[in-house]
Amino acid sequence: MANRIDAQLAFLTEACKLKSVLRGTTLCDGSRRENSGEHSWHIALYALIMAEHAHRPINIDRVIRMLLIHDLVEIDAGDNPIHGDHDPAAIEVIEQAAAARIFGLLPADQAAAFRALWDEFEAATTDDAIFAKSIDRVQPVVSNLASGGGTWPVYKVTAEQLYSRVGSKVERGAPAIWHALKARIDAWFASTPNS
Amino acid sequence: MANRIDAQLAFLTEACKLKSVLRGTTLCDGSRRENSGEHSWHIALYALIMAEHAHRPINIDRVIRMLLIHDLVEIDAGDNPIHGDHDPAAIEVIEQAAAARIFGLLPADQAAAFRALWDEFEAATTDDAIFAKSIDRVQPVVSNLASGGGTWPVYKVTAEQLYSRVGSKVERGAPAIWHALKARIDAWFASTPNS
Repeated sequence: MANRIDAQLAFLTEACKLKSVLRGTTLCDGSRRENSGEHSWHIALYALIMAEHAHRPINIDRVIRMLLIHDLVEIDAGDNPIHGDHDPAAIEVIEQAAAARIFGLLPADQAAAFRALWDEFEAATTDDAIFAKSIDRVQPVVSNLASGGGTWPVYKVTAEQLYSRVGSKVERGAPAIWHALKARIDAWFASTPNS
Repeated sequence: MANRIDAQLAFLTEACKLKSVLRGTTLCDGSRRENSGEHSWHIALYALIMAEHAHRPINIDRVIRMLLIHDLVEIDAGDNPIHGDHDPAAIEVIEQAAAARIFGLLPADQAAAFRALWDEFEAATTDDAIFAKSIDRVQPVVSNLASGGGTWPVYKVTAEQLYSRVGSKVERGAPAIWHALKARIDAWFASTPNS
């Protein structure tokens, strides 16, 4: 038992580092960049509140578990903003190694179970993972809209980019939410000069 | 449907403010104070990983839901460090009003359901709530130990205070975890001059 608790606390202490990984999005009030730890809390809450809008039947508790662990690999790999330039193949190699290292801190049974859950999220083929990926894309849009466009001007984001990079994923898992977001996105671009 | 999503997004945008409420504890590396949003993520992950140590049978998914919402009232009431001086009755009045305001942003059915879950956490009489309260006390101790004592010197915390304010709650919900923590706490105080 003692060894088991030691391993679990080592994992949980390592996980603390996710609070120091900064994302491309700010808080809703625009006061500072968001970190991946608080983002993980916020989207778990998003999923809990918006589960009724899932396109297909989901197990919301599995979705929440996925979202609690989905970004841990960023401790080694960093955050790669959706509107930034990066090499997906190179990032995948780093994230796979990060998953092996970080989940490997847990007792073997938990390491295997949580690695499998992360693999399922990444593959995005099950209904739970598809909804989890949708929610992960919804929250930054809402935060950007709340802070008057947030980091969209910085990344020179267009409405078409949002349709293709965000809309396609959100619509796949939660079409009603995308319908509501698209109306807000269109209103923002219509009212913002030079956007 | 549109009104329902509007209300849910208003609640989730308000929830974002929890990332700006600072706690008495630092991150594990001591680099800065922790906020209540990232704390909520970290303890949901703690509960998920350490569920097997619950003293009595629990529904871990209900525990995680409780922990995701347990600190939202701090948006209005602020964080009250366990080792600080404050008036519990005055804080309770503020937190009750905060719960009414914040959960009240949700559609009525969800407002009632999540308010009931928060009331259950606060009352700490069900097995799920007792375990959730235990985990809420475990994480700051681990963070303080990881950062060489963290904010204990600031608050002039003694081992006896930790036994009474932390140990009693952790032992009630997760005695095996308290056993492991107490050994670490005792070793820290034994090795730290003037502590």
